[in-house]
Order: sequence, then C-alpha cells, then structure tokens
Amino acid sequence: MTNQFDDLNLKLKAKKIKLVAFDVDGVMTDGSLTFLEDGREIKTYNAHDGQGVVMLNKAGFKTAIITARDNGTVEHRAKVLGITKLFKGQKNKLKALDELCAEFNVKYDEVAYMGDDFPDLCVIEKVGLSCAPNDAIEEIKLAASVVSSFGGGKGAVREFCDFILKSNNITWFDIVQNPADTLKQ
Amino acid sequence: MTNQFDDLNLKLKAKKIKLVAFDVDGVMTDGSLTFLEDGREIKTYNAHDGQGVVMLNKAGFKTAIITARDNGTVEHRAKVLGITKLFKGQKNKLKALDELCAEFNVKYDEVAYMGDDFPDLCVIEKVGLSCAPNDAIEEIKLAASVVSSFGGGKGAVREFCDFILKSNNITWFDIVQNPADTLKQ
Amino acid sequence: MTNQFDDLNLKLKAKKIKLVAFDVDGVMTDGSLTFLEDGREIKTYNAHDGQGVVMLNKAGFKTAIITARDNGTVEHRAKVLGITKLFKGQKNKLKALDELCAEFNVKYDEVAYMGDDFPDLCVIEKVGLSCAPNDAIEEIKLAASVVSSFGGGKGAVREFCDFILKSNNITWFDIVQNPADTLKQ
Amino acid sequence: MTNQFDDLNLKLKAKKIKLVAFDVDGVMTDGSLTFLEDGREIKTYNAHDGQGVVMLNKAGFKTAIITARDNGTVEHRAKVLGITKLFKGQKNKLKALDELCAEFNVKYDEVAYMGDDFPDLCVIEKVGLSCAPNDAIEEIKLAASVVSSFGGGKGAVREFCDFILKSNNITWFDIVQNPADTLKQ
Repeated sequence: MTNQFDDLNLKLKAKKIKLVAFDVDGVMTDGSLTFLEDGREIKTYNAHDGQGVVMLNKAGFKTAIITARDNGTVEHRAKVLGITKLFKGQKNKLKALDELCAEFNVKYDEVAYMGDDFPDLCVIEKVGLSCAPNDAIEEIKLAASVVSSFGGGKGAVREFCDFILKSNNITWFDIVQNPADTLKQ
Repeated sequence: MTNQFDDLNLKLKAKKIKLVAFDVDGVMTDGSLTFLEDGREIKTYNAHDGQGVVMLNKAGFKTAIITARDNGTVEHRAKVLGITKLFKGQKNKLKALDELCAEFNVKYDEVAYMGDDFPDLCVIEKVGLSCAPNDAIEEIKLAASVVSSFGGGKGAVREFCDFILKSNNITWFDIVQNPADTLKQ
Repeated sequence: MTNQFDDLNLKLKAKKIKLVAFDVDGVMTDGSLTFLEDGREIKTYNAHDGQGVVMLNKAGFKTAIITARDNGTVEHRAKVLGITKLFKGQKNKLKALDELCAEFNVKYDEVAYMGDDFPDLCVIEKVGLSCAPNDAIEEIKLAASVVSSFGGGKGAVREFCDFILKSNNITWFDIVQNPADTLKQ
Repeated sequence: MTNQFDDLNLKLKAKKIKLVAFDVDGVMTDGSLTFLEDGREIKTYNAHDGQGVVMLNKAGFKTAIITARDNGTVEHRAKVLGITKLFKGQKNKLKALDELCAEFNVKYDEVAYMGDDFPDLCVIEKVGLSCAPNDAIEEIKLAASVVSSFGGGKGAVREFCDFILKSNNITWFDIVQNPADTLKQ
C-alpha cells in the first residue's frame, strides 16, 4: 500500500493507463442507499467527481462503471458523464474487467480501478493502478495502490482523475483548447 | 461498559451469538427522518452496513430488525438484505425480543442487539451482547456491551457484523467459497 | 451568553418553563432546503430530536413551532410529535409568541425558545430561556441563554429538551411509568 | 490569494460592488448531485445562505446565478430568493458575465462572484471581488480574492453576503427598518 500520490512509481503506473473504471456505491457516492417507500432509489453523486470523469473522457481515456447493484440513476449518470461502458448488476466484477479488456484491447496494467469493499478485491488485485476512498474498508485500503485523501462521493474520484491527468501531463487548459479525445494517445 | 472490540470477554460473548437484531433509526440510519410534503418518508441506509448484514446471513446467523416506527422502506430494505424477521411499529421492544427467542429457539445470551435511544434500553439490558453507535444517547452507550467507532448509518452496523464474524473465525473468503448458511453452526 | 448547561441560574430559568417553542430550518433541521424539480420540498428531521419533543409533551409541557417558511412536511412532523401549536408562514415571530402567551396563559419567562438566524432575534430577546444550535449565526449565539453542543437537526433540540426535563427532575422512567401529561405541574 | 475577510483592501473592493453572482453546484450547494431513478434531480440549498441573498436583494444589490447545468430547482430557488437574473445551461460563463455587465450597466470591478471549479476560472479572473468555498478545487482557491471559512452549501454564500453587507455598513436592523432596495446606492 502506498498512500501518497506523489510517489514516482505510482506516476509511472498512471502513465500506462488507457481505461479508468469505477465502482458506484461508496466510490462515486458516499455509500448512502436512499429509498422512497415504494423501493425506488435516490442516489447522490458529486459535482467535482463528475467534472473529473468528464475531463478524463475529453482527454481521450476510456471510462467504465462496474457495479454489483442495479439502479436507474446509474444509467442516467453514466450517460451524462459520457462513461464509455456501464456494467450493472454485475456480481462477479472480475468477469466485467475481462470483458472490458477484450472489448477495448487493453491489458490489466493499462486499467485503473476504484473500489471500496470486498466485492472489489478481485479487480484491485489484477489492475495496474487502483485507488480506495479513505472511508473504504481496511482490507481494500491495504490492497489498493493508493488511498485517496477524500471519502467516496466526497472528492475521491476527482482526486484520482486529477492524478491520472497530471501524470500524463494533461491540464485543464489542454482540455479546453483541444478538440475532444485527442490528448491521451 | 466496554468500548473496545478487542476485549476477550466480548469475543466470548460473540461466539455464543446465533441471532443479531438491529434497531433502524439511528442504527441502520444516521437518525435522519426525511419526508416529502405529503408525509411519505425517504430513508437512507449504508452500503457497507448492508454488506455486513448480508455476510451475517450468508454465514448462517439469523438476523432481525426491531423498529418502533413504521415505514415502507424498512420492509424493502429487510427483503434486499435477507433479514430473517422484521418487527415494525413495535412500541414494546422487549415483547419483540421474546417472540424472536421463542420462534428461533434462542436464549437471551445468544442474541446480539444494536440500539441508540431510550426505547432500546429494555432489550439491551437482556441480551448477551449489545452495541451502541458512537452517536447514541449517553444512557445507551453506558448500558451497551460495546460502543462502535462509527455513528449510526455510517458503519456502526458493519463494524458490529465484522466483529461477530471474526469472533466466530469466519472470513470473507469463507463466505465466498462456501455454500450459504453453513458456516455458523 | 452562557454556553454551559450546568449553570445553576440556567436551571432556575428552566424550572419556570411551561411552553417550549422551536424554529424549524436550522433548528429542527440542519438548515438544508431540499427541492424536487417542480418546487415541492423534502425536509429532514432527526430521530433523537423527535424523541426529546415527544418526552416534553408526555411530561406535560406545551410545545410549539414558529416558522417563517411554509412547507407540508412541517404540518406532518408537528402532528407526529404531538406539537401543541404550529405557526407557519409567520414572518413576524414576536406576534406568534404573543399569541402563544395569550392562548396558553403563560408569561415570557415561562417560555423557552430555540432559533438560529436574524428573524429569531426578536423572540430570543423576550423569552425566559433560549438556546442556539452551535451552527447558528454569531449574533444569535451571543443573544441566546445557552449554545448547544450540537448543530441544528443534529441533536441540538434533544439536548435542550433533556436539559429542561432534567432541570424539572423528570426522567425517562418517570415518563414511561406515569400517565401522559401529569409530570410537569 | 487572501484568505481573510478582515483585509482592508478586500473591504475596499467590496464597497464598489453593485452586483453579486453565484455558481450553483458546489457554491449554493455542497456539490451533491441527487437523482431519482428517472433522471429527475433533487437539489439541496441552505437556509442561512438564502437569508444572506435575501438581505443583499433587500439592501439594493443586484444578484445573479450563473450555472453550466440546467435543473428545475434552480429556477424555483432563484424566484424564492428574488435573484435578479438567472443564467442556466451556460457553458461559457464569461459570456454570461458580459451580458450581466451590459444589461445592468456595471463594470467588472463592480461585480462579485463565487465559484468552485474550473469552469468558474474565466469569471474569477475578471471580476472585482471573488470568493471560493473552502472545499473548492485548489486552482480556484488560489485564484479567488478570498476563501470562505465554510464549504459550498454550508454557509460560504452567507459569509460572503455578510462580508459585502458589512463592508457597505449595512446591518440587519437597517434592512428590517428601511423600505426595500434603498440601502445600497
């Protein structure tokens, strides 16, 4: 476990990344599960996190969501953010990772992943770069390449996106000034 | 009152547990009571907590919810988590405890309970193992066997589930690799 | 300004109280104002706070809500908690205080009030006992008899209710064992 | 970057202000983006912040909202607060600023602005006075005239409103006692 983003080895890992995948509950959210009385779900994402994912997409990275649960807001959120590929109701997350690698022709060490609980462990053990929100369970924080300074749904996703962009020398001004999807080769 | 989970006596109590029961508001939630203008309720649970309860169920423990209030989301949440028995609108919680013990043929010292406010006191005084979230009222924190490091709806349930599983030497890998409901004898 | 509940003078003031009134936003809630796209409101109260108000009512105190805003959930919440009198859409809160005093035949020094912002100042300056949540604006914290250890919607109401009950030597066991509305004479 | 509101130069800047504009997500809210399963949005504002904006309006300042996103609650909230001009779905915020200056005949140094993320940078670089919530991204906190002691949706807007009012020697009592819109000349 490395818990600092200024580690050189970590930056070298980040330079290889072509695809960034995220768990939803506890990563893109703070782990809150909110329900109406009829069982319909309400989910809270984060604006800073969203800006980070949008910048990754504009910079030319592939992005994915792999969630074991199934909820209508995830589909909507994935669309708004321009997520490349959405896996939902995916109990076996390693299977989703393998499908991603096959479809986009990337290797494990070209994938970055964020997760926070036991079902994410099998993916974190495979990918080249992984990050845990600072309120993930201990076992995940120990297994991940790096632990965020922020909690799930509270900026952890944004910090990880910013780190990957910076490690690839891509800035906000590059993203604004260049046509979409051409910065990351 | 013991406020540390590494107490040996506490682990011995946890080894006897066959049934784990939870209050809802302030335990499975942070005590927020959210309403639409027409009085319908919205309730926020926690993904880490849910994972803990699911693991208890898969490990073969009986689980129960005893809540004095009545709300549609509780029924839905209990179903998703696989809760064995749900008591709602239960003003006298001791009566619910006695029904649980009779139905599942367990003794008080085989029951674990989490509560956070005065109406939980009568149950906490009877069961073999009890836990209060760290934002419970003082009287409950003093009466409980142990106080969680986390608040209600913020991981207190998960920490208590993890403690019971570990005290019974049951790990995540046991749960994944074994058929359901066979680990806790 | 006194910011400690163990002040003897404060307890003497609390012994005189017959009616306890609350502002809503920032007192019974954390000041969040949540809206659906069509403008309908969703409001979040607190279970511990609610238990405190219910205990005041059962102990025989009169209770009131005085809010400048108007929202359907307030009416619903007041009913569930057994609030004696609800003033909503009340821009001039001093007028509501005077109506309360007339209707229930109580004097200013028999009224306790909780508020958090400028519109509450005119009431706080009159009543016998007043309390500000710890996230009230500075001007209110300076004017109030006491500042809570908790924020609005996060236990400030409960702490104030507990203080009034304790100052009148009324316990949870008294409330459970006695018929309603007979403890506070 | 100045991070203290008691800076004399900052007060001089505030005395020139005639129009105060706000970003929404991360400024008037804590950056949470909450969705129902059908994609409809729920947004949480803050009562103290709202009181601050209402006081600015009553004191005679022009107020504006400039948001890149589009959501029904913003229109509703702007109306309730008496916001003078609302720009929504505004991807180029500098364009909105220029329209504001033209319509209300104010210069850049007569405009105050609050923002929290990259899309706000182009406005912050132009206006006479700018403020970042304390949970804004680092680049915005460095660019802004001042950083609030509070987070977005947690009192940052109120602190900035209070500062502008105080710098112009306008108090709560002035606002209550005077006819609307006559204090700021």
